[in-house]
Amino acid sequence: MTTPQKPLVFGVYEQAAVGLGGVPSLWTHPEDERLGIDRLPFWQNMTTIAEQANLDVFFFGDVLGLYDIYGGGHESAVEWAVEAPANDPLLYVAALAAQTKNLAYGLTASTTYEHPFAFARRLSTLDHLSEGRIGWNIVTSYLENAARNFGLDGQIKHDDRYDRAEEFLDVVYKLWEGSWADDAIIADKAALRYADGSRVRRIDHEGAVYRVQGPHLTSPTPQRTPFLFQAGWSPRGKAFAAKHAEMVFVGNGDPEAVRTGLIDINTQARALGREENAVQSLSVMRLVVGRTEIEAQEKYDLLQSNYHLEAQLVSYAGDTGIDLSQYADHEPLGSHSEGFASNVRNHGKSATPITAGELRAQFSSVTRGQGTTFVGTPEQVADQIEQRAAYTGTTGFMLTQFISPGSLEDFTTLVVPELIKRGLYREDAPTGTLRSRLRADGSSRLDPGHHAASFRFPAR
Amino acid sequence: MTTPQKPLVFGVYEQAAVGLGGVPSLWTHPEDERLGIDRLPFWQNMTTIAEQANLDVFFFGDVLGLYDIYGGGHESAVEWAVEAPANDPLLYVAALAAQTKNLAYGLTASTTYEHPFAFARRLSTLDHLSEGRIGWNIVTSYLENAARNFGLDGQIKHDDRYDRAEEFLDVVYKLWEGSWADDAIIADKAALRYADGSRVRRIDHEGAVYRVQGPHLTSPTPQRTPFLFQAGWSPRGKAFAAKHAEMVFVGNGDPEAVRTGLIDINTQARALGREENAVQSLSVMRLVVGRTEIEAQEKYDLLQSNYHLEAQLVSYAGDTGIDLSQYADHEPLGSHSEGFASNVRNHGKSATPITAGELRAQFSSVTRGQGTTFVGTPEQVADQIEQRAAYTGTTGFMLTQFISPGSLEDFTTLVVPELIKRGLYREDAPTGTLRSRLRADGSSRLDPGHHAASFRFPAR
Repeated sequence: MTTPQKPLVFGVYEQAAVGLGGVPSLWTHPEDERLGIDRLPFWQNMTTIAEQANLDVFFFGDVLGLYDIYGGGHESAVEWAVEAPANDPLLYVAALAAQTKNLAYGLTASTTYEHPFAFARRLSTLDHLSEGRIGWNIVTSYLENAARNFGLDGQIKHDDRYDRAEEFLDVVYKLWEGSWADDAIIADKAALRYADGSRVRRIDHEGAVYRVQGPHLTSPTPQRTPFLFQAGWSPRGKAFAAKHAEMVFVGNGDPEAVRTGLIDINTQARALGREENAVQSLSVMRLVVGRTEIEAQEKYDLLQSNYHLEAQLVSYAGDTGIDLSQYADHEPLGSHSEGFASNVRNHGKSATPITAGELRAQFSSVTRGQGTTFVGTPEQVADQIEQRAAYTGTTGFMLTQFISPGSLEDFTTLVVPELIKRGLYREDAPTGTLRSRLRADGSSRLDPGHHAASFRFPAR
Repeated sequence: MTTPQKPLVFGVYEQAAVGLGGVPSLWTHPEDERLGIDRLPFWQNMTTIAEQANLDVFFFGDVLGLYDIYGGGHESAVEWAVEAPANDPLLYVAALAAQTKNLAYGLTASTTYEHPFAFARRLSTLDHLSEGRIGWNIVTSYLENAARNFGLDGQIKHDDRYDRAEEFLDVVYKLWEGSWADDAIIADKAALRYADGSRVRRIDHEGAVYRVQGPHLTSPTPQRTPFLFQAGWSPRGKAFAAKHAEMVFVGNGDPEAVRTGLIDINTQARALGREENAVQSLSVMRLVVGRTEIEAQEKYDLLQSNYHLEAQLVSYAGDTGIDLSQYADHEPLGSHSEGFASNVRNHGKSATPITAGELRAQFSSVTRGQGTTFVGTPEQVADQIEQRAAYTGTTGFMLTQFISPGSLEDFTTLVVPELIKRGLYREDAPTGTLRSRLRADGSSRLDPGHHAASFRFPAR
């Protein structure tokens, strides 16, 4: 691909946590406002900025436990606020959707720890009240502490979590797509007829993990199945994305890996009967942007001086099970007995073990050499966005803030005008459901070739 | 008691359902707007009315299944919208709390089907974002279909549900009251210290039903434990209320039963070490009020003409397991083989079986002879409220609307001014947390004699 899609799609990544995933120590930056995450003004300010800038999606990640591997306990995560505390994003999405008109929301929720019946009702309610401005980021969860918060001795194995996720999705698809027919609602007061009872059916799901009778408790919503995000990048994760996802969230910063990975996912999706380029993508993007190169460099230096390696290592330990506090610099990673060893989050690195010292060196910079940070003037940053999109074929980018809401403000005030000049950013306010904005045919319903469509209520 | 408490406390009862519990067919009334429950304008209108009238609480009931006993299936419940569809009130509470400043909310959620770790985080988040304007109505759920939606063959027995509820409450109390010390938060950017790790602890709960490690994922909220409502009226339900509830919701319309029941609950609470009159109460109140007696009678007649006995019998069947569609008028109730026979909702009637015809006759009126409906001019209705409060000792009333939002409008425009004249209704806007408004000492924290207080983090 030599020219990017025009316009690109842009989102902002958030978590209802003081320390944001990826850069968990930057709440200490003097301009950062993340200590305000508990209450609404912090969020209302950001969603107002996002809505006024016609951003496509305001996205919430989530965790269901603390990063308690580093140092053998939860103390460091709590002291340094590494993705902690972690409030429930669901409630903020509901509150913020009510206070914005056009902004759409992505919500992360776990197939491992939610119950599909209750979850399907929650998301249907949210789709109703937001009038279709909702996407669900399907995750299977990875923290040891999360497993122990939900009654398990430890994590369910990676691929087993995906097996459970497959069944979970069948249940929610049956409820969302198949329980109420399109023509079920009558809403005739005089006849005392709200619905046609014969057009509403039980799902009677009986599987290895779940038994759910139904019918779905909620009437058909604007999108029925909410728009589907997913972020797995393992072989199993990509196969799962090919079957289910409408948009993948790509954390990898290696352009070649992204390019081939996205082709791989869409090739698999096509083989499953889905439409051409069924799986869109948002790639993580971090920005350090100034009106001049000097200003950008000054901003970078201030970020670096408020960056703390130790907090990053808490996050790394939770993700990988490897506790760097137990390692001298010369020791290769993985040489200690670990609590668990699944490298759950993809770091885009080779499988060859590096030493603890090499990892510390790699993590010594606030950008961590991950290839996801663009630095410079608005023109320089727009160049990097354009080139990255052209090379990788990504549908767009997910801004992860260094400082909140400063990074979002920098993006909307400095970079967006330059992107608009180049035709890379939408100029009009997005309207309609989230899916209708992102699908080529403008439909609010899933592609008929998607697995979920097989559960639809037969037409009369 | 010869004079009621002044002022009384008033709430309004709602459900995110087209057919409202108690009067499920009145969505057919020409002035009713319940067909709009899915989206926000219906709710924003009512919460604006409630907030402007300084109402104490906007309360959401909930069900987790359909009333599928009547006629042997879910069809009637769906056709007539009997407590159906049933959206999740949690999302509306979050959205509405964001759009109101002082109005407090009660939220029904089930100890049988929620997971305590996820639930504790949800309510803590809601307590943060609403700045303490949240109460939780503890229920154990009763519908057969709900059990089958959550993987069970049928309902867990009534008293076993209460046993599970006791353990559920211990888990959430440990998370809310005992996981983070009052002095845990430091929030010092320069020192990279969000919290004192030694003042945040795991709960390591290991019980018959739940294993939860913790720590709680959310920092201490304005109320910590949300204000606690409960509605059980069985012997086990009253004992449960005496131990846990701060306010009971009383559906019974027999003044003598209410009077002695409330004394019983508070006597039991005192014996458990709780403070004097620890358990407050809101009694169900339905209103038909007109500027004149003639206008009130006309309103009553219009209600009656939009009332459908069949819809009421769907509700009765779901509550009791008794399917009147299978009974001729002469047959005594309970003489058929029933799917289940626990009379879960208390109807304030004796245990002697009546015939199906007698029940139909009793249910033929929109007021159903329950003693919870006050009819007349504003002065007449205020008299009835005052007398009922004086006799029963109830702390206040929970308005259940016949027509929405018309009944609430009638209450606030016609009855409230009369109540204010008598000193029975607050004149100022409620401020602070819900608990601080309702407790005599103005504290946002639970009574130190409450069971939950035993889990508190020791002072340093």
